[in-house]
Amino acid sequence: MTKGRLTLPSETNFLEETKELIERWGADAIRDSDGTKLDEQIKSLPAKIYTTYFVARAHNEFAEKHPEETQQLYLLSDRITAVNSSVTISFMKGFLKEQIKPDYQNDAKKWWEVIDRTSGEVVPTTDWELEKANDQVIIHQAKAFHEYTVSFLAYMIWDPTQMYNHITNDWGDKAHDIPFDVRQPYSNHHMKTYLKQWLKDNPDTDVVRFTTFYYHFTLFFNDQRKEKFVDWFGYGGTVSVRALNDFEAEKGYRLRPEDFIDEGYYNSTFRNPTAAYLDYIDFIQAFVAKEAKELVDMVHASGKEAMMFLGDNWIGTEPYGKLFESIGLDAVVGSVGGGATLRMLADIPHVRYTEGRFLPYFFPDTFHEGNNPNIEANENWLTARRAIMRKPIDRIGYGGYLSLAYKFPYFVDYIAEVADEFRDIHDKIKDVKPHTVLKVAILNAWGALRSWQTHMVAHALWYKQIYSYQGILESLSGMPVEVSFISFDDIIASGVPADIDVIINAGDAETAFSGGDYWENTELVTTIRKWVYEGGGFIGVGEPSAIHKNGQFFQLAQVLGVDKELGFTLSTDKYFTEVKTEHFITQDTKAFDFGEGMKNVYALNADTEIIEYSNGEVHLSSHDYGEGRGVYIAGLPYSIENSRLLYRSLYYAARKEEAFEKWNTTNPACELNYYPEIEKFALVNNTMDSQETVYFDGQGNRFEVTLEPSEIRWEEI
Amino acid sequence: MTKGRLTLPSETNFLEETKELIERWGADAIRDSDGTKLDEQIKSLPAKIYTTYFVARAHNEFAEKHPEETQQLYLLSDRITAVNSSVTISFMKGFLKEQIKPDYQNDAKKWWEVIDRTSGEVVPTTDWELEKANDQVIIHQAKAFHEYTVSFLAYMIWDPTQMYNHITNDWGDKAHDIPFDVRQPYSNHHMKTYLKQWLKDNPDTDVVRFTTFYYHFTLFFNDQRKEKFVDWFGYGGTVSVRALNDFEAEKGYRLRPEDFIDEGYYNSTFRNPTAAYLDYIDFIQAFVAKEAKELVDMVHASGKEAMMFLGDNWIGTEPYGKLFESIGLDAVVGSVGGGATLRMLADIPHVRYTEGRFLPYFFPDTFHEGNNPNIEANENWLTARRAIMRKPIDRIGYGGYLSLAYKFPYFVDYIAEVADEFRDIHDKIKDVKPHTVLKVAILNAWGALRSWQTHMVAHALWYKQIYSYQGILESLSGMPVEVSFISFDDIIASGVPADIDVIINAGDAETAFSGGDYWENTELVTTIRKWVYEGGGFIGVGEPSAIHKNGQFFQLAQVLGVDKELGFTLSTDKYFTEVKTEHFITQDTKAFDFGEGMKNVYALNADTEIIEYSNGEVHLSSHDYGEGRGVYIAGLPYSIENSRLLYRSLYYAARKEEAFEKWNTTNPACELNYYPEIEKFALVNNTMDSQETVYFDGQGNRFEVTLEPSEIRWEEI
Repeated sequence: MTKGRLTLPSETNFLEETKELIERWGADAIRDSDGTKLDEQIKSLPAKIYTTYFVARAHNEFAEKHPEETQQLYLLSDRITAVNSSVTISFMKGFLKEQIKPDYQNDAKKWWEVIDRTSGEVVPTTDWELEKANDQVIIHQAKAFHEYTVSFLAYMIWDPTQMYNHITNDWGDKAHDIPFDVRQPYSNHHMKTYLKQWLKDNPDTDVVRFTTFYYHFTLFFNDQRKEKFVDWFGYGGTVSVRALNDFEAEKGYRLRPEDFIDEGYYNSTFRNPTAAYLDYIDFIQAFVAKEAKELVDMVHASGKEAMMFLGDNWIGTEPYGKLFESIGLDAVVGSVGGGATLRMLADIPHVRYTEGRFLPYFFPDTFHEGNNPNIEANENWLTARRAIMRKPIDRIGYGGYLSLAYKFPYFVDYIAEVADEFRDIHDKIKDVKPHTVLKVAILNAWGALRSWQTHMVAHALWYKQIYSYQGILESLSGMPVEVSFISFDDIIASGVPADIDVIINAGDAETAFSGGDYWENTELVTTIRKWVYEGGGFIGVGEPSAIHKNGQFFQLAQVLGVDKELGFTLSTDKYFTEVKTEHFITQDTKAFDFGEGMKNVYALNADTEIIEYSNGEVHLSSHDYGEGRGVYIAGLPYSIENSRLLYRSLYYAARKEEAFEKWNTTNPACELNYYPEIEKFALVNNTMDSQETVYFDGQGNRFEVTLEPSEIRWEEI
Repeated sequence: MTKGRLTLPSETNFLEETKELIERWGADAIRDSDGTKLDEQIKSLPAKIYTTYFVARAHNEFAEKHPEETQQLYLLSDRITAVNSSVTISFMKGFLKEQIKPDYQNDAKKWWEVIDRTSGEVVPTTDWELEKANDQVIIHQAKAFHEYTVSFLAYMIWDPTQMYNHITNDWGDKAHDIPFDVRQPYSNHHMKTYLKQWLKDNPDTDVVRFTTFYYHFTLFFNDQRKEKFVDWFGYGGTVSVRALNDFEAEKGYRLRPEDFIDEGYYNSTFRNPTAAYLDYIDFIQAFVAKEAKELVDMVHASGKEAMMFLGDNWIGTEPYGKLFESIGLDAVVGSVGGGATLRMLADIPHVRYTEGRFLPYFFPDTFHEGNNPNIEANENWLTARRAIMRKPIDRIGYGGYLSLAYKFPYFVDYIAEVADEFRDIHDKIKDVKPHTVLKVAILNAWGALRSWQTHMVAHALWYKQIYSYQGILESLSGMPVEVSFISFDDIIASGVPADIDVIINAGDAETAFSGGDYWENTELVTTIRKWVYEGGGFIGVGEPSAIHKNGQFFQLAQVLGVDKELGFTLSTDKYFTEVKTEHFITQDTKAFDFGEGMKNVYALNADTEIIEYSNGEVHLSSHDYGEGRGVYIAGLPYSIENSRLLYRSLYYAARKEEAFEKWNTTNPACELNYYPEIEKFALVNNTMDSQETVYFDGQGNRFEVTLEPSEIRWEEI
């Protein structure tokens, strides 16, 4: 049994059991949670103490004194049809008044916008009036049967995370945390003086766990107290009159409400970001980094460590942004939903360590009689372990009520095993570069800024429209390849990075992930065509490079050898439907699963290798393009089989098939990670069943092996 | 047994049997066919004689003397990628040289275009050269990894229909019919002098069956002698240097090759037509009408009738165009594939009679031992009869080898029954206005010009991308409603016609049938919104009113109560999924079939009545909008059940549910047509099984009835 690298949640009146579990799991840190506190005796145990710290909420005594410094956001009313020349918009309809309060302090005529959504025109401020008494805007001289909206500035008078917990757990009349904006003078002063004192008052705290800094991702509820809108990446909650003025002073132009409202899309990451929105992200990022640095410096000055939680009020920290390093954080902690979210944490640069909060939470939904929490724990660990084998986080931890978990002795045993296995992996491969044959770049409008964050709406949640793309990152997270994230602008500015073997472009048409009107840029398309022609591999998933223009939909149709029928070329006969039943890519595939798939994709000519064709459509194909190749996949939900299909597609696209039977396994349920620097390799069984596989060493020699359920087996060279 | 209204195909050496069949089927006309001729004895039988007449082909002796007058068309080469600054395009690659010959007579630099399809720019003529010897264009100063095409003018040296028959039937060294262009002087002179003589030489001919006039719909083959491109509406084959010059003189501007090539789409009817293309259609229509009138006048002067075949060389006749009347034709004959194609014939105005050519053809593919031709005949008759009950054609007929059909006595018997039934229906309801409650308008970019011709690629052929829309017309063809076709321009110019109850807009996004960028027109959208608000019904199928703009995809989303998720509003919670299991629209529906369906459609709010929801999507819904309603249907392939679903949707959209149980049946397999003027109604069994149904009279009284398979039962009021 080994020790360390594990954080235990604890609670009051749980001293002896905490001691026992510190011992059993080798924990070296203890944390509080939302709803649990640590008592003095626990704080004096021989372990680091993490203390959750809220910077910009949970200080209502202060916040209530400065309502003008409450955080703000821009919101869009319902779309109301004018049936005659006057139309009244009750703009608060559908919003939760407990959370949202219109800003009647600042001049609505200056800061709000009424828009004719049929013509797209802004209604002159002389043509509408605000009736504050009943939260209405009345538009005069409306055009009949045009649809109108009000974009209004509001105060957010309830912190979204506390609101969520409060409503979900029925906290009754517990006070609502008012989030305040540290861009404002009193708030800024308060947060600093408060922290200064707090650091003095909490000598037992070793690690200040910021949860998080200043701005929550966009989350607001409806008048039924249910979620109305959630965007884990949303900058909606960062806005204020002061921020807008500061922005104008700094960037030299003024933002409009519409820069935030964005036709009701609120700058979803699925939208190609506008130049103004990117400027705004930079602007907020700079502010957050500068202010967070001050807090972190204070923490350091007090001899403690500063850790941030990647979630809740993380907006503006941008762990993959240019300014993150300047904050000077010691650590980042985040929740691990699978391999992709693990890599989102593990790959964060410029911190000394990263910590993953694993599933299941110690909550009654899992820890109740008749349920075996080991199953969820095992699944979570297997998906995370795949990713850890490529890039380890430095610590693991859990959350919730330790007393609940304690009632399940076999769970306690299982976590003890996981902890040992994690420490063993970490000891062996931390800072050891794993062997890779291929370098893969995910290409989209966001690039590195959204590393491991593509196709995500709310953290790790499933949506019908995204799961067929999310499988790509989940597959890559544990695959023996190097992964980077590049943007269209990167390619336009500097070409394809020299060391990339395969580019993946995946997403629905028009989205920022497939690229939409970026593909009208001839520099972009010719650069990629040339790069593939000279030997690069391009994998398109869904509607890659899609924009209807110049007689085609996929602008890289000639590279991929397929395009999508939109109805305009039905007159042209489509003869190419014959499937290559034996193909390198599908050698391990028994049944296809393209998830939502894609309709009406067809092969352009006989040169296209059709690998799967059904329902009158191509769902998987490859096409030689000069020295390179273009592979098309209709969709790739995560599964072990699809992960292998993608892995083979990468080799095929890169024309490195001959390297496939080196440092590899024949059974897709098993993976082999090789670490040349330490002259070891690991055979990993990613399933809860026993698996037989052949594996290949670096010379291609074959070995047979049987791996126990979930086994990881280390071998020396 | 009755007589008349039936045309028999006959052939040489088949006199006695022909006489017998004239008697059995009550035929009053005899025709020849492709590949069959009538001998003198048959021509002297007591029946009208139809003779097939080719105006602009099958005169090779003439055509070979004037190769410069051969018909032309614009063709697009393959799209070739420049891998360096010089690119060679073998523009004839993929075309059938037996059919297509590049035009090397006229100056390529003037009449051809080389286009950079990556930038969309035309390559200056100084930057490319034509090498006639090897059918190549060489582009100098090409931009690397741009894709280039050559739009070239070619001669069509083989008539497409003859080519099709020739290749299909392996006619070996039979001469290839060269189509000549009657816009050219010699050709024009030839066709007139030839017809003049021909009319003299064919005294037995009563009806000159023009097959057809001057220009074939676009149809060209590939170098494997298989169809490469087919567009039943294509004006591709009407072009020539002379036509282009005439056009410029008449319209005041010059067309470019790209006006025909259209990025490779060749002005598919699925494209919103450009102003130039509409001008061109008008221009050709005017020419065809004027020239056809001259021929028709000659026919009339010789005491014969002039009939045109709706197909093959029908381009420019435009039976639903403004100039059709001026041609002065006596009749139109066309092939009947079902109800929609029957109505396409039957509704043609300004002719004395219409004739439908029914299935099956008397060809060996159907008339062979072991096959029962009655089944196809019965199916064809039932689908056509539905439509005939609303608008009868005036004659029926058959094609092929009569000698083949004669070998199937039970087929002869069945057609005798069909003929009697047809004559009976015609006698009763010709020129009798059937009772209707609802007037329905199909709204698209083409309007009346393409009446009963929406979503069609090749005549009556099935395509995966269209069958889910074609079911609408097929359903309507026999439904007790009045159907008209209106265009977006009609509405923009004159509003919605006053008597319309329901508008249907159906199609995939961007197509001319759903409307694409027409929906950016605020006049259009507000007119329709107002009209629905004041009580109109709007039914959207597929992607109605779709163009991504102003924060929505369906521009009538507020009318329909649904929109399609494109990925940009995933952050907005979608709560509305509850289905109204009891709904007027689905009262007769047992299982849903939306055909290809539509993905990711969701209800905007609780006001939307969701009628079908599965796989996380709405496929059928209704939404009250003022006094009117918007109904959404994901797709509507033809079936008896879907026809009923549409019928109910029409009543529901029009808010006339209370009228549904009048002059109607409860069993969707049966329909009731009421003819007030003759105080009769007909109960029709549209299936080959016996059917029980309740039917309602005009007061809503219920009656029970059992109809025999295929029965039509007439009742007096």
